[in-house]
Amino acid sequence: MAAKRAYDFEEGDGKNKKLLGGKGAGLCEMTQIGLNVPPGFVITTEACLEYYSSGRRLPDGLIEDVEGHLRSIESKTGKVFGGTDNPLLVSVRSGAAMSMPGMMDTILNLGLNDSSVIALVAKTGNERFAYDAYRRFVQMFSKIALGASEEKFSAAFDTIKSRHAAKLDTELGADGLKEAVAEFKRICRTETGRDFPDDPHVQLATAIEAVFSSWMGKRAIEYRRFNKITPDMANGTAVNVQAMVFGNMGDDSATGVAFTRDPATGENVFFGEYLANAQGEDVVAGVRTPKSIYEMEKEFPQTFAELMDVRQKLERHYKEVQDMEFTMEKGRLFILQTRNGKMTAAARLKTSIDMHEEGLLTKEEAVIRVDPAQLEQLMHKRIDPEAKKRVKIVKVAEGLPASPGAAYGAVVFTADDAQRLGNEGKKVILVREETKPDDIHGFIGAQGILTSRGGKTSHAAVVARAMGKPCVSGCEDIRIDDRAKVFTAGEAVVKEGDTITIDGTTGEVMLGEVPLVDPELSDDFRRVLEWADGMRRLGVRANADNPDAAAKARSLGAEGIGLCRTERMFNAADRLPLVHDMILSESDADRKAAIDRLEPLQKNDFLGIFESMAGLPVTIRLLDPPLHEFLPSTEQLLQDIYELKAAGKDTSAKEKLLRKVKVLFEVNPMLGHRGVRLGITYPELYEMQVRAIIEAACDAKKLGIDVHPEIMIPQVAIEKELENIKKLVERVATEVMSRSGTNVDYKFGTMVEVVRACVTADELAEVAEFFSFGTNDLTQGTYSFSREDAENKFLPKYISEGILKVNPFEQLDEDGVGRLMEMAVQKGRGVRPGLKVGICGEHGGEPNSVELCHRLGLDYVSCSAFRVPIARLAAAQARIKEDAKKKFARDV
Amino acid sequence: MAAKRAYDFEEGDGKNKKLLGGKGAGLCEMTQIGLNVPPGFVITTEACLEYYSSGRRLPDGLIEDVEGHLRSIESKTGKVFGGTDNPLLVSVRSGAAMSMPGMMDTILNLGLNDSSVIALVAKTGNERFAYDAYRRFVQMFSKIALGASEEKFSAAFDTIKSRHAAKLDTELGADGLKEAVAEFKRICRTETGRDFPDDPHVQLATAIEAVFSSWMGKRAIEYRRFNKITPDMANGTAVNVQAMVFGNMGDDSATGVAFTRDPATGENVFFGEYLANAQGEDVVAGVRTPKSIYEMEKEFPQTFAELMDVRQKLERHYKEVQDMEFTMEKGRLFILQTRNGKMTAAARLKTSIDMHEEGLLTKEEAVIRVDPAQLEQLMHKRIDPEAKKRVKIVKVAEGLPASPGAAYGAVVFTADDAQRLGNEGKKVILVREETKPDDIHGFIGAQGILTSRGGKTSHAAVVARAMGKPCVSGCEDIRIDDRAKVFTAGEAVVKEGDTITIDGTTGEVMLGEVPLVDPELSDDFRRVLEWADGMRRLGVRANADNPDAAAKARSLGAEGIGLCRTERMFNAADRLPLVHDMILSESDADRKAAIDRLEPLQKNDFLGIFESMAGLPVTIRLLDPPLHEFLPSTEQLLQDIYELKAAGKDTSAKEKLLRKVKVLFEVNPMLGHRGVRLGITYPELYEMQVRAIIEAACDAKKLGIDVHPEIMIPQVAIEKELENIKKLVERVATEVMSRSGTNVDYKFGTMVEVVRACVTADELAEVAEFFSFGTNDLTQGTYSFSREDAENKFLPKYISEGILKVNPFEQLDEDGVGRLMEMAVQKGRGVRPGLKVGICGEHGGEPNSVELCHRLGLDYVSCSAFRVPIARLAAAQARIKEDAKKKFARDV
Repeated sequence: MAAKRAYDFEEGDGKNKKLLGGKGAGLCEMTQIGLNVPPGFVITTEACLEYYSSGRRLPDGLIEDVEGHLRSIESKTGKVFGGTDNPLLVSVRSGAAMSMPGMMDTILNLGLNDSSVIALVAKTGNERFAYDAYRRFVQMFSKIALGASEEKFSAAFDTIKSRHAAKLDTELGADGLKEAVAEFKRICRTETGRDFPDDPHVQLATAIEAVFSSWMGKRAIEYRRFNKITPDMANGTAVNVQAMVFGNMGDDSATGVAFTRDPATGENVFFGEYLANAQGEDVVAGVRTPKSIYEMEKEFPQTFAELMDVRQKLERHYKEVQDMEFTMEKGRLFILQTRNGKMTAAARLKTSIDMHEEGLLTKEEAVIRVDPAQLEQLMHKRIDPEAKKRVKIVKVAEGLPASPGAAYGAVVFTADDAQRLGNEGKKVILVREETKPDDIHGFIGAQGILTSRGGKTSHAAVVARAMGKPCVSGCEDIRIDDRAKVFTAGEAVVKEGDTITIDGTTGEVMLGEVPLVDPELSDDFRRVLEWADGMRRLGVRANADNPDAAAKARSLGAEGIGLCRTERMFNAADRLPLVHDMILSESDADRKAAIDRLEPLQKNDFLGIFESMAGLPVTIRLLDPPLHEFLPSTEQLLQDIYELKAAGKDTSAKEKLLRKVKVLFEVNPMLGHRGVRLGITYPELYEMQVRAIIEAACDAKKLGIDVHPEIMIPQVAIEKELENIKKLVERVATEVMSRSGTNVDYKFGTMVEVVRACVTADELAEVAEFFSFGTNDLTQGTYSFSREDAENKFLPKYISEGILKVNPFEQLDEDGVGRLMEMAVQKGRGVRPGLKVGICGEHGGEPNSVELCHRLGLDYVSCSAFRVPIARLAAAQARIKEDAKKKFARDV
Repeated sequence: MAAKRAYDFEEGDGKNKKLLGGKGAGLCEMTQIGLNVPPGFVITTEACLEYYSSGRRLPDGLIEDVEGHLRSIESKTGKVFGGTDNPLLVSVRSGAAMSMPGMMDTILNLGLNDSSVIALVAKTGNERFAYDAYRRFVQMFSKIALGASEEKFSAAFDTIKSRHAAKLDTELGADGLKEAVAEFKRICRTETGRDFPDDPHVQLATAIEAVFSSWMGKRAIEYRRFNKITPDMANGTAVNVQAMVFGNMGDDSATGVAFTRDPATGENVFFGEYLANAQGEDVVAGVRTPKSIYEMEKEFPQTFAELMDVRQKLERHYKEVQDMEFTMEKGRLFILQTRNGKMTAAARLKTSIDMHEEGLLTKEEAVIRVDPAQLEQLMHKRIDPEAKKRVKIVKVAEGLPASPGAAYGAVVFTADDAQRLGNEGKKVILVREETKPDDIHGFIGAQGILTSRGGKTSHAAVVARAMGKPCVSGCEDIRIDDRAKVFTAGEAVVKEGDTITIDGTTGEVMLGEVPLVDPELSDDFRRVLEWADGMRRLGVRANADNPDAAAKARSLGAEGIGLCRTERMFNAADRLPLVHDMILSESDADRKAAIDRLEPLQKNDFLGIFESMAGLPVTIRLLDPPLHEFLPSTEQLLQDIYELKAAGKDTSAKEKLLRKVKVLFEVNPMLGHRGVRLGITYPELYEMQVRAIIEAACDAKKLGIDVHPEIMIPQVAIEKELENIKKLVERVATEVMSRSGTNVDYKFGTMVEVVRACVTADELAEVAEFFSFGTNDLTQGTYSFSREDAENKFLPKYISEGILKVNPFEQLDEDGVGRLMEMAVQKGRGVRPGLKVGICGEHGGEPNSVELCHRLGLDYVSCSAFRVPIARLAAAQARIKEDAKKKFARDV
């Protein structure tokens, strides 16, 4: 006997999405928990597969089955399919195990024809509505089920409207609509070579076949391929056939939508709107203003009570806030759909806590339903969602959302101005073509940064993110004239001192001051994070480069510092001249002297950081960037020299600088003379840094501070590089400790950010006591994509063309970078069991990447302070998912 | 019973290097094949291990064994160790299974003391010689066996010399030397706290212990560690104790060296020199002029006959040309050492052929003894080895040996001048700070290229190598003044028109015209290559970008083209303006028009290449470099603009160009908008190239030419990139073929030069029909080293410090890049069995890399035409080694 091919909503297994599709299973489920769903049935995905295995023909006997189930709907509704008195109209929808674009759309009002439409007029008392439904059905059916193209219908409808002097669709009366029905049928014939079928049974069979056929449509195939949806995940589509109900059958009818709780605040109050004598579209279209659901309590108390009951049933069943659609037809309440409610981050936190306390959710369930990425919006100042109600927002440009949060201030074009005005307490936005370490004091003074060049990992973006300041980068819409101190964006001309607002979360640039709201680590947020902390296996550290940032990170839950970038200390305004001296020195003695003057400054920084992080590990990375990054650009210097010459002034200092810049010039600086390569060629630099670290640690220890320094070497590709530097570190550390008479328990480790470090991780682990993945550079090396170039030049096209699903610099690339990381972890721990492995790249705060790190068995992630709460949550969720998977494996 | 700890040369197993060390085994072997070797014995490596396992003490009973073997020497020589009449003197040498720096040096004349020295004076009749030997022995023994430092001895010797008014060591007479002996003994005592031992038995035991101890010396340990010499390869050192013989015992004594064949020509004639009444050092020191070995036939006919016999025995035994040392002591011939002879590339080829024909070597043995790297010197013009006899060579600078071969010519500073003068038939050397595609016509006109900037993979180097022209790059010793048309190198000032000679094999720059000799693919060379072709499994193709180069490659044995770089075609002088038009075009239509004008030119190139390579595969890589490479630099343009402004001229054209250059600017161009990324963002470019390829192939086919085009995509990192371009290629190819009415069987494949391509090779192999490793870029991505920056900035230090053994851009890095290649081959063939995999990076012609490619199972290597013969030979050797290894595995 063939398997059962169709199930009434009362009999289908609501858990079997594979057989019934997601939509069908949901309709069965709602029906079976006692909600009043318009009756209907599901044709199985297996029937769809039979359709293909029999050469794209409906399986024998399917139509007979369908007729049987139709009769079941007829008996439940008292209506007759194809009847002329009380006709049964149905909707036909596709529905695979996973939702999928490219599949057939809904066909509504199937069953209408020239005779049943008259019955519909009688039932609704609304001729215009009935004929509008009819012309829409003809159009939709011709298009979707028979494959006619849209254009002809639109053109014909426009012609009819103009003939009837109707501007809007709604101005066209029943007569015009009748004309449209006739005309549409004609178009159907000429376009598809087939007559529009008047027989509802033929309509239904045709629609079912069209649904099946859409499974193998080009877009659907591509979507499945791209998203790696394999047949074991979804194979074939089901077909849902359901009786139509109408909320516009008179004053005892209505239609509406409701959330089971307030989606803005999360409060446990019913939240919805309805319109009496209306259909669903009317609520959406906003032609009439809907009423609050609480009006219903007065207007339709019985239905309201029923709805309150539905609300409770749904939440108990789905354990999630529901967003439902309902229709009251002649006093009878029908539930058409329910889905998980979208809500604000705050609401999600509140409902998680409430629903756990109500006993609806376990703690794990409460934690896993909070989207970490969504929480990011709570961590920065943002445009007040109500702002547009209060001010007119004039958006003039859009760049890359480089560092989240919003800010406003007066435009300044130089870092000096930003610093000066910032010190005076003025709010300013620093606007530059691009920024350099020279501009760092301007970042401190500014509320936010806007650049016309550079990607999300440009200097401006990275520094802004680390400082937690909003930044819009690579905003090519604006043209900056530094000298005239003005920028243009399209028509708009913005002068120095004019106020603008930037939104680093969206990349938008707006004129004037747009109201903002403050970030919040609310009590709800703290509570959920505490729960998460109890569940996660991954540690969470922060990337922080100074004592304030370290303290901030600790307050947000960081369990140490995973990356302290010592070059940030070089960039500070009081250091840069010393760094210049060091680079420009012409003798070893001069260089040594400059380095010696840097040392006490670095030492002080470390001491402050150790204080902030007392008792916790602090990973300090020795100098990484190439030295020329600390100098002005060739172009800048050439311009300066020509200007000085024109003014008859002395150019020798600038020319000396230019010569040095040329000597240090690199074709591909990202792959150049930097990191450990600097440490090997200029050992005095690393020696100074190690001395500063260990001296600070000894001093801290004497002050009673519990210190755990971890010294980390960047850009390592070869085991011997690491060995060379380890000797240097040991020598200097021993010297300092014996001089100080204190012993500091420090660790020595390596960044794993060069591909070769992954491939030879077993060799590195012989020397390194810990690994920390630098996934920005690792991604770069794996793809051969320069971040700065890629994000401006070709990544947008790669994403829009579907060559990449996401930017691999934002979310770890599991198939490429992830496999190299896996190799590194395995090889490293093969040699040194228990090797501590972390990640300190930008990915460390991105939820999907955190999950990957958990699966790879890392010990911790490290990210900027503002993302620490997000990482804590994501780490807990990774653990919960892993446990669920293990449980599933055990159960199977 | 303990294992035997020492072996007479007559009894030791000459094959057991592990037990007896290399040197000891050789002495045993020579003795046993009947050569008259001064008698001696070997103490085993096992005894050395016992020394360590018993806490650095000589094993019990060892000294008794040694005494026994000493008696055996005494009986063979009739001399007595420590005797005062006819004293036996011995040498003591270390000797592990593999030669190893840092081990103990030789101690000669052990056995000398105040009484035996008198006997030596009597025997030699040369008091000065005897005391010189004695003072050297005391010094050497104190230093090597007792650990005294060199300095004190040198200082004392200088004092004694000045006291005796001797400037040279040789001017110091016996009296002075006697003083030195006494003084050296005193120094020994004060420096080491030990008296110099007069007892020869104590001398010997101390020397043996010193040899054992040197096995664990710091340098030796480091050497073994760095070279990955594991205990199964060499464990402990042996000690060789051998009777001294003297060639300076009178006119019936002599000493000499000889090659069994002429090492310059390979001719089968005896070749050597000797000095009567002299010791080895005299031959080396060149104080007296040695005589030809054929003089010996007259002077010492009996010994000469013996030597001719030794010559034959050695060659028959070692199956290799031998370089031997001999001594005649009082008419008796002793063979002291023999080793494989070093010889010229030409000699090596000739001897291989001769020795095979003489039945000494199998063909495989004849092939494997030819060093492929050495053959490279035959493939280019080179400085006449006799040149210095004819002209005075003034070397003024040294840069990187960027493209091998030598050339001379008049200095020019612009590509235009090089072209113009080259066309007039003049020989010129193009001298530039660095070169750009703009300069390409200058390369064609010049004999060679000299640049002051850029590494071995700079534009100048790569283009020069591809053209087979000599190039010295990154020659920082010279300072170029373009405008004055002059360069300086130290004191030397070289003006335009002055003649210089450059040697791209060594990096040297010389003044004037140094005589050169022509390259030769001699008959011997061809014959050996034919043998090699019969043995190799790897195919050998060439990298060639035009019909002439293709024809040249074919004549050198290339079996197809593995890499045709289409951007080289863009760079030709007649194309560059069109390429500029294309890049500068402001509308799609303009760009399309420029591209259309390029197409017929490209098509013609392909047609010519197909003709040259009829019947063989031609792999064509679509455009790879970023577009800005075809434009002048920002700096150049800024300078031009300032100069035009100063001259009051119009700058608008240059300014337009500058704007475009700025738009195209990339921070890291090597990782930028290039390769397949260009193909995806500007599909019209790749479409044009595919059209040109397929049209040319169709036309060729109509002309009866057998064509096998293979279209290859550069820089692929993601399967979808390849899929996208494959669709484009298929579409265009189908169009062209249907228009032409011809069907061309082309293949579609990918470069594997991005790390991610290796990691996801299984995905790529679903789309690609072949892989070709681009190991330049792959090495770059694996190490995160920019080639151009690394070779100038830190690689020299890395190599001198031992962090890297070789430059990974010259020889494939097996541990890093090699493992990724292995992964790619396995994953690729896992999905597409029999997938064709080649390599077209610069490594494809480097012998060690060729061997690695063979082991990885690649199908072919591709290299520049001039390296094709080298690759053919290296491929055969890889096969021979593999077979030997397999045989070994079977036998074990």
